[in-house]
Amino acid sequence: MAYMAQQDLLIRAARCEQTERTPVWMMRQAGRFLPEYRAVREKHTFLEMCYTPELVVEVTLQPVDLIGVDAAIIFSDILVVFPGMGLEIDFQSGKGPVIDNPVRSAADVARLGVPDPVESMGYVMESHRLLRHELEGRVPLIGFAGAPYTLASYAIEGGSTREFQLCKAFMFNEPEAWDALMTKLAKTVSAYLCAQIDAGAQVLQLFDSWVGSVAPRDYERSVLPYTKMVLDEVKAYGDAKVPGGVPLIHFANGATSMLDLVQRAGGDVIGLDWRLDMARAVEQIAPRFALQGNIDPMALFASEEVIDTKVSEILAAVGTRPGHIFNLGHGISKHTDPARARHFVAAVKKQSACIRGGAAQ
Amino acid sequence: MAYMAQQDLLIRAARCEQTERTPVWMMRQAGRFLPEYRAVREKHTFLEMCYTPELVVEVTLQPVDLIGVDAAIIFSDILVVFPGMGLEIDFQSGKGPVIDNPVRSAADVARLGVPDPVESMGYVMESHRLLRHELEGRVPLIGFAGAPYTLASYAIEGGSTREFQLCKAFMFNEPEAWDALMTKLAKTVSAYLCAQIDAGAQVLQLFDSWVGSVAPRDYERSVLPYTKMVLDEVKAYGDAKVPGGVPLIHFANGATSMLDLVQRAGGDVIGLDWRLDMARAVEQIAPRFALQGNIDPMALFASEEVIDTKVSEILAAVGTRPGHIFNLGHGISKHTDPARARHFVAAVKKQSACIRGGAAQ
Repeated sequence: MAYMAQQDLLIRAARCEQTERTPVWMMRQAGRFLPEYRAVREKHTFLEMCYTPELVVEVTLQPVDLIGVDAAIIFSDILVVFPGMGLEIDFQSGKGPVIDNPVRSAADVARLGVPDPVESMGYVMESHRLLRHELEGRVPLIGFAGAPYTLASYAIEGGSTREFQLCKAFMFNEPEAWDALMTKLAKTVSAYLCAQIDAGAQVLQLFDSWVGSVAPRDYERSVLPYTKMVLDEVKAYGDAKVPGGVPLIHFANGATSMLDLVQRAGGDVIGLDWRLDMARAVEQIAPRFALQGNIDPMALFASEEVIDTKVSEILAAVGTRPGHIFNLGHGISKHTDPARARHFVAAVKKQSACIRGGAAQ
Repeated sequence: MAYMAQQDLLIRAARCEQTERTPVWMMRQAGRFLPEYRAVREKHTFLEMCYTPELVVEVTLQPVDLIGVDAAIIFSDILVVFPGMGLEIDFQSGKGPVIDNPVRSAADVARLGVPDPVESMGYVMESHRLLRHELEGRVPLIGFAGAPYTLASYAIEGGSTREFQLCKAFMFNEPEAWDALMTKLAKTVSAYLCAQIDAGAQVLQLFDSWVGSVAPRDYERSVLPYTKMVLDEVKAYGDAKVPGGVPLIHFANGATSMLDLVQRAGGDVIGLDWRLDMARAVEQIAPRFALQGNIDPMALFASEEVIDTKVSEILAAVGTRPGHIFNLGHGISKHTDPARARHFVAAVKKQSACIRGGAAQ
């Protein structure tokens, strides 16, 4: 029965309910900072790991067991939707993802499909089912997908980029082809997230990892409508399928200077990077949204005392406002000492229980 | 006499005076997007170019002559202060700057000097003198330096970085050594900027290129005091030396979600990247500051019509508020077509003259 309370904690916080303490997890927690992850990764390619449910289960559970986080987030990649759409992906060591046939024209967009998620990403749904079984209700299971803009940037650039030159030129100069591409991506992502609900995901996070590269007016014109399409559709689906609905976390990385627009795009929880003071976030984000964030991932390279102080500053800024999920402002660095990550998670639990009046564990 | 009016334009805008149109220049305008620059660069290393006043003059004047910008910014690099401090720099093709003896301890900080700028960077002062002569008052000459945090990040990391892990760990865990380092950097930068005033620089820009990596509370605690030290000292020096003072542009890249703190650090002009809508900047930035910015550099890959629209949106957001210098939100991309850059500059001149009631040229 003790499990039930913890299982519930993050979901209740995501619904802006008062909780006895602040739940905490870490973006990229199933990842390279854990030696136990690296031991698995040494024997398999990154995509092999994504495609093999037993391996997904193993590395997804590691941070729950080893670090004590309050949620499991399925190990996967935002680009797994691409092969089903007709985009060939490859992960080259040190270079990041490479798309062999990037989108450069309206004709390229026309050739893309909107895949059936169960047919083309059945391994993700199978992983969710296995994970729910293995988790036995200890903590909730988070599913995720990439947001249309972030996916479009990979599809057009053919990989990672710093300038987004091709992506933005396409957005500026080919509005019809851009609309067609973003619509296909939005439909693909919506269907994929809905299928994750069917397979057992209890919370969903939409990662708009690269949207911070876009000027606010371009976001409003050319990005927001498609992000909103995804969030609205998945929200309605979750409401229909699950009592109380499936909370959606909208993480628009680097977009803290246009949070008005990010809120307009939707979600139940607004994910925050570390560039905005949490006190400002509390002012700027409407009370109907829960907040997720937002310690600098590099704070985990500080001493335990400094980590404690930084945690306390963020918790104090939120106060007793209902609806806070503690997280890093970005993915955990692969160089992080797991002991510091454990200290961070324990510090959030302990300090927030003092503020919110519950028990640390 | 026509020259005098244009000479004055950017300086008057920087002082928040009403101007007959909006002055415009582009960060990194003396750079690789110009074939004429690349022709010089082919024959010399990057550092040779920085160290040779005749080459500095040649490439600094190129965008004034070829693109029609309203200011010349001296061709140089923020890291030229390092050799005089005892840090060896090298620019390796494709890898960016490398510091052979990075700062990793209090002892490393203790070994650093605060150089006499005329002794160790005399070539910059000589370049300023030559440029003022060559410019004949056509447009004002901008000098610049890197801000302490940005320089500290290079000094500690030993080059460019994405995560700032070593830099932040130093900042978090070695507060005394951090203070000593930042103080030495602030003194070096102040003296260097004052020497540029003596040599003829009419406007100065402080580039805090990487400060967007810092959380607001860390900025306030560990960065702002040193940036303020530089800006206060150089302001006082300029006020004493030049009638009306020397305007200081404070460009805190990526820091648009903590503009309250950026303003507190000082400057006469707040430089803005493209992540904040200009209408918001007008609300958030006190009227005593002029504004610089802020079109997405990637907008120059759009059609001329789209460029015109984006220029008009920014000009409309500023309206007739006194004190706007148009610029890109970041350095111009090396892939930019010079014809588009020329179109952008002409569009700002023409449209702003309509709003502000002056003549486009």
